[in-house]
Amino acid sequence: MISDSIKELVEKSSVIRAMFEEGASLAKKYGPEHVYDFSLGNPNVEAPASVNESIKNILDSEKSTHIHGYMNNAGFPAVREKIAESLNKKYATTFSQDNIIMSVGAAGGMNSILKAILDPGDEVVVFAPFFGEYTSYVSNFGGKLVTVPPNPPEFKPDAEALSKVLTKKTKAVIINNPNNPTGVVYSEDDIKRLCVVLSDKAKEYGTDIALISDEPYRELVYDGGEVPFLTKYYPDTFICYSYSKSLSLPGERIGYIVIPDEMSESEKVRSAVTVATRILGFVNAPSLMQLAVAENVDAEVNVAAYDKNRKALYDGLTGLGFECVKPEGAFYLFLKSPIDDDKTFCDMAKNENILLVPGSAFGCSGYVRIAYCVAYETIINSMEGFKKLASTFGLS
Amino acid sequence: MISDSIKELVEKSSVIRAMFEEGASLAKKYGPEHVYDFSLGNPNVEAPASVNESIKNILDSEKSTHIHGYMNNAGFPAVREKIAESLNKKYATTFSQDNIIMSVGAAGGMNSILKAILDPGDEVVVFAPFFGEYTSYVSNFGGKLVTVPPNPPEFKPDAEALSKVLTKKTKAVIINNPNNPTGVVYSEDDIKRLCVVLSDKAKEYGTDIALISDEPYRELVYDGGEVPFLTKYYPDTFICYSYSKSLSLPGERIGYIVIPDEMSESEKVRSAVTVATRILGFVNAPSLMQLAVAENVDAEVNVAAYDKNRKALYDGLTGLGFECVKPEGAFYLFLKSPIDDDKTFCDMAKNENILLVPGSAFGCSGYVRIAYCVAYETIINSMEGFKKLASTFGLS
Repeated sequence: MISDSIKELVEKSSVIRAMFEEGASLAKKYGPEHVYDFSLGNPNVEAPASVNESIKNILDSEKSTHIHGYMNNAGFPAVREKIAESLNKKYATTFSQDNIIMSVGAAGGMNSILKAILDPGDEVVVFAPFFGEYTSYVSNFGGKLVTVPPNPPEFKPDAEALSKVLTKKTKAVIINNPNNPTGVVYSEDDIKRLCVVLSDKAKEYGTDIALISDEPYRELVYDGGEVPFLTKYYPDTFICYSYSKSLSLPGERIGYIVIPDEMSESEKVRSAVTVATRILGFVNAPSLMQLAVAENVDAEVNVAAYDKNRKALYDGLTGLGFECVKPEGAFYLFLKSPIDDDKTFCDMAKNENILLVPGSAFGCSGYVRIAYCVAYETIINSMEGFKKLASTFGLS
Repeated sequence: MISDSIKELVEKSSVIRAMFEEGASLAKKYGPEHVYDFSLGNPNVEAPASVNESIKNILDSEKSTHIHGYMNNAGFPAVREKIAESLNKKYATTFSQDNIIMSVGAAGGMNSILKAILDPGDEVVVFAPFFGEYTSYVSNFGGKLVTVPPNPPEFKPDAEALSKVLTKKTKAVIINNPNNPTGVVYSEDDIKRLCVVLSDKAKEYGTDIALISDEPYRELVYDGGEVPFLTKYYPDTFICYSYSKSLSLPGERIGYIVIPDEMSESEKVRSAVTVATRILGFVNAPSLMQLAVAENVDAEVNVAAYDKNRKALYDGLTGLGFECVKPEGAFYLFLKSPIDDDKTFCDMAKNENILLVPGSAFGCSGYVRIAYCVAYETIINSMEGFKKLASTFGLS
């Protein structure tokens, strides 16, 4: 019954699912407090209380047919206007509601964008390590994923390496800042270097190369760091935003896309992305959640909790002799595996009830991802297991 | 910047958007009470009060990280279990949560199914007239839409005509019951005849032919009519359900898919559809709405209001000499255009401030669709305009 094209994806997927199931089975066997599940980026920090208050207020004050009804496929105009105004205030931009399309999370937004711009055979460039789902998103529309090799130990985007992989067929470059899985934040200088390469190559080839910026972790930065707002640096920029992490609403599938006026054929692109949102079956971003996030454009989750976790994890692991770049954003730490085979290292960690994701799932073997959006105690209590692993490999 | 493949879709889409914009502009010019907009299937009946109550209760009683968090891509197990139990009670089926996958509306569900089963070049059969979006959904995955010609004046599905279009490449047949745009309900006998043809042809070709039943209007039936539950009649049945109409939640994008144990390779299919839900960027159905609909499996919207509209519209129009099949379900009436050119008839109706959708948008020219999910007064007050049209064509 199932298609040839999905068979392989199901096989791959069941490897990860097997890991989750093993996590659940370990929790049952040893008790959840003795299992250190760092595998999934599912925030443990609560949504701001104002989100639930807004939902209740909306239910009490607006008409049901408005709250739960269809609107323009791009989203409620008033919601888009509020988001535009909020971005303008934060980043000194000049967006209107026309520049904003509400999306079913960043994943939905990225699929709508790729549907709107990709023809079969077009190339989409990513920097390894990268969020593994990009591979599927690009292949959904017949695109070909092209990888810029990992750039350890700092994992900054390498502009020169980028220039080597761009071709006449390059339709888009995806960046993810702050980065999943490394926790690295690309600085203004990093971005400027990338944008020069993109502009030069697009000019040389006489093509449009889109920069797609996947930004669910925009607000999760530490030590006063700043995430450059990309439409200022490169006109052909799409921003895919999600409230999954910034408001801890990952299950609600709510986010937005920014398409600036400066983009080539901006109006056509906005129509195309709106149509794509409809015909891919999203239709529109969930209506009540659109109204709720519009009331919470300035709300914040407890970033300090993630920061506390970050410090405990980084200090703990480096103190044991492990190597990693210090995370500056998101809630991931990308640890160098003491052995080349990251999958074997993950298996060994599992013996200590520690669940990690192999770097090879992100196109970067020899590393493992630790998602620290967990209880602080989980980090502290996992250290005994990490200590055993460190000692096994003679790190400490 | 935009892809060749989406250009044509944007062109087509802007024709419909132009109609909506014209509606808004007419409303501004003449006042909304003098514009009779029958174009969109956006329910004017409120969601049951219990839905909003459930949302508030859930927000007050459950943890934020549960309400708004990630869960299995197939949806919350407890929600799926409640839906399975409710179906079992209503239709004497034996589903468990494993047979249910929560989806981003029926549109999202159908895309996940088609991703899971279609390889490029596979054929998908629809009965004209049909919901125009099916064309896009099928082409999203390289499928080829094959149409069974319209069967006026009753618009019942013609099993013999179906048997003529099935080939070795037929992967699926989509039916929509109660039907958009005709309002016709397929009876048990209609369904049995279709299923015999499907079984015979699948056997003859040695293939699997899926029956995909799009059922957002399942509960909207009149005069005590019944909608057969298809998994009883044909094992390779997918049911795509949505709460858009049954609970008036179209903007929330919440529905589910049923995949029975009896389906060929059922377990593999369920894995594939779950993976498809993730990689298409839906990830999961919106979490709070999943929890809310589970509390409202037996809630009902005010179907009597639609029924009142149906009678007023049917009696009014046939009294004026117009011809149509009497709608038995959904909230659409499919009117025979007094002239062959349905688009010209829609333009003439627009001159009376009456907005209709040409049947050619549903693969059936010579007819127009009237969506009667509007205020009762809209129907009554539109009759003057319809009377003028009837008189123009010498109907009355």
